[in-house]
Amino acid sequence: MIIDCHGHYTTTPVEAEAWRKLQIDALGNPALTPQKAALRISDDQIRESLEGAQLKFQRERGTDLTIFSPRASSMAHHIGDAQTSRVWSEICNELIHRCCALYPKNFVGVCQLPQSPGVPPETCIPELERCVKEFGFVGCNLNPDPSGGHWKEPPLTDKWWFPLYEKMVELEVPAMVHVSTSCNPVFHTTGAHYLNADTTAFMQFLTSDLFNRFPTLKFIIPHGGGAAPYHWGRFRGLAQDMKRPLLQELLLKNVFFDTCVYHRPGVELLLKVVPVDNVLFASEMVGAVRGIDPETGYHYDDTRRYVDSIEWLTAADRQKIFEANARKVYARLR
Amino acid sequence: MIIDCHGHYTTTPVEAEAWRKLQIDALGNPALTPQKAALRISDDQIRESLEGAQLKFQRERGTDLTIFSPRASSMAHHIGDAQTSRVWSEICNELIHRCCALYPKNFVGVCQLPQSPGVPPETCIPELERCVKEFGFVGCNLNPDPSGGHWKEPPLTDKWWFPLYEKMVELEVPAMVHVSTSCNPVFHTTGAHYLNADTTAFMQFLTSDLFNRFPTLKFIIPHGGGAAPYHWGRFRGLAQDMKRPLLQELLLKNVFFDTCVYHRPGVELLLKVVPVDNVLFASEMVGAVRGIDPETGYHYDDTRRYVDSIEWLTAADRQKIFEANARKVYARLR
Repeated sequence: MIIDCHGHYTTTPVEAEAWRKLQIDALGNPALTPQKAALRISDDQIRESLEGAQLKFQRERGTDLTIFSPRASSMAHHIGDAQTSRVWSEICNELIHRCCALYPKNFVGVCQLPQSPGVPPETCIPELERCVKEFGFVGCNLNPDPSGGHWKEPPLTDKWWFPLYEKMVELEVPAMVHVSTSCNPVFHTTGAHYLNADTTAFMQFLTSDLFNRFPTLKFIIPHGGGAAPYHWGRFRGLAQDMKRPLLQELLLKNVFFDTCVYHRPGVELLLKVVPVDNVLFASEMVGAVRGIDPETGYHYDDTRRYVDSIEWLTAADRQKIFEANARKVYARLR
Repeated sequence: MIIDCHGHYTTTPVEAEAWRKLQIDALGNPALTPQKAALRISDDQIRESLEGAQLKFQRERGTDLTIFSPRASSMAHHIGDAQTSRVWSEICNELIHRCCALYPKNFVGVCQLPQSPGVPPETCIPELERCVKEFGFVGCNLNPDPSGGHWKEPPLTDKWWFPLYEKMVELEVPAMVHVSTSCNPVFHTTGAHYLNADTTAFMQFLTSDLFNRFPTLKFIIPHGGGAAPYHWGRFRGLAQDMKRPLLQELLLKNVFFDTCVYHRPGVELLLKVVPVDNVLFASEMVGAVRGIDPETGYHYDDTRRYVDSIEWLTAADRQKIFEANARKVYARLR
């Protein structure tokens, strides 16, 4: 079985985006705020949005189950206030729940959290509990920068985040560290902000004792861990200069990387330097890069081909990367 | 000949740091601002600061010439105002000039620019001209984020920077894109902020037509290009999705990477995916990572060993990486 731990609902019917626009347009005039119930999307529309995209690619690429969450760039936690974010997150999570209910063999849910800049993360607990307990979701996406590229929140290792971590531990759900749209013009969203956030989070974990306090807390750093595996020697050396433990003891029981790296040499590097127990297969499809690589004739994000092509992986390694690690990290995955 | 294009004067005599402290302490009371002439450092002190560090490593590792600039983390452009930055930059650059004068075979200078948050970059032109014309420096370090981790300046591709670029083109000097200390607690300086800035700059170049306007302008993205080579497929795919030209045409006549990647698999990836014409040897010594890698028994930043060990490089490739590319990018290097 092949589990893809990183897929977003990037193909939602246009009605969702239209509803969001109404919500945003009403920010200056709350009387115009649309009701949640005003968003009408039929089951057939959902089926259609998935059949020609995520489901088609699952079939073509031979993957089985996608751990599925709302479109990351649309979380846009910086828009409006906590109430704006709460209602939009509920809508996005309910759409994911419907995808999972329509295709229970193909999708399992991960929720968007109703974060808002400067608002304590514990305000996200009710939505996390609802998604896990009522919808059967198995994780959440945690945005380390709800400001959208202005980076005003404390590091992920600060006690600011601890109430949410306590709930994650209690529910046995991990978080994927995932920022949303950058509204800072220096950072391109998918080409810089996403990768920067991954690198930033990794270095925060490296410099803290967070996992002494939360030994079962688990994070997935997406996009192949940002710059971390490419600079693995730098990170090992920085930890050593700071008299920190080896990365293995310091964070590799708690921090995992996905395989969303869109060329074979990158995936090979990831698998060479990061222990195989810490890598989870993922493609981020349909996501940041949608084209076909003229050098291979296949989609850039068809990451299964890269993993398959690495001849020195053992069958046991592949089983971990494709399935067992996901079941270990997402403990609620049945 | 082996040219190391990325070395910082991280071992300055303590008097320089003490002077800087006086300057900072006087920010609230300008009457206490120290005079430049109050900083006294002898030639012997400079010799001593280099002999046991950069020169020792040059000899041990068999490298010849270091393109040498002030300590990047100490630039701290966010401190004080443009005048604070101007005087501190002059001091740092004059120290580099003295190192180069004492060891003309071992060092050639690159200057720190007196940037200051929100201050137009053309204010740096006089110091750049002084360093190039009077001191014989061959390049500059350009900080895309003089705020120190708050990222308030326009992208490097904005016209905000053009007057400086015009002068760089006229003088035939490249810039290394290099941030300084992060004063944003989310970003570790050498473990996150440096790498993020590299990735950010690369994506800015990818999305702009800067090099149509400045066809001879050249940038070095240090630290192996941040996350760019590891995610080369992502960047190729993003450019393709945006209908941009191939990276080769779009930016590889103008953008170069150094080899400051502190493990063999990382350096091998860099050399596999980035054309050999775009990679310049560098170690960043004595810099971000100072320890010895227990896995190899050698310093993490002894990057020559990694390049030497890559058996599929041809002699011509090595000559480009170790010398010819540096001579091409730093046109004033004699």
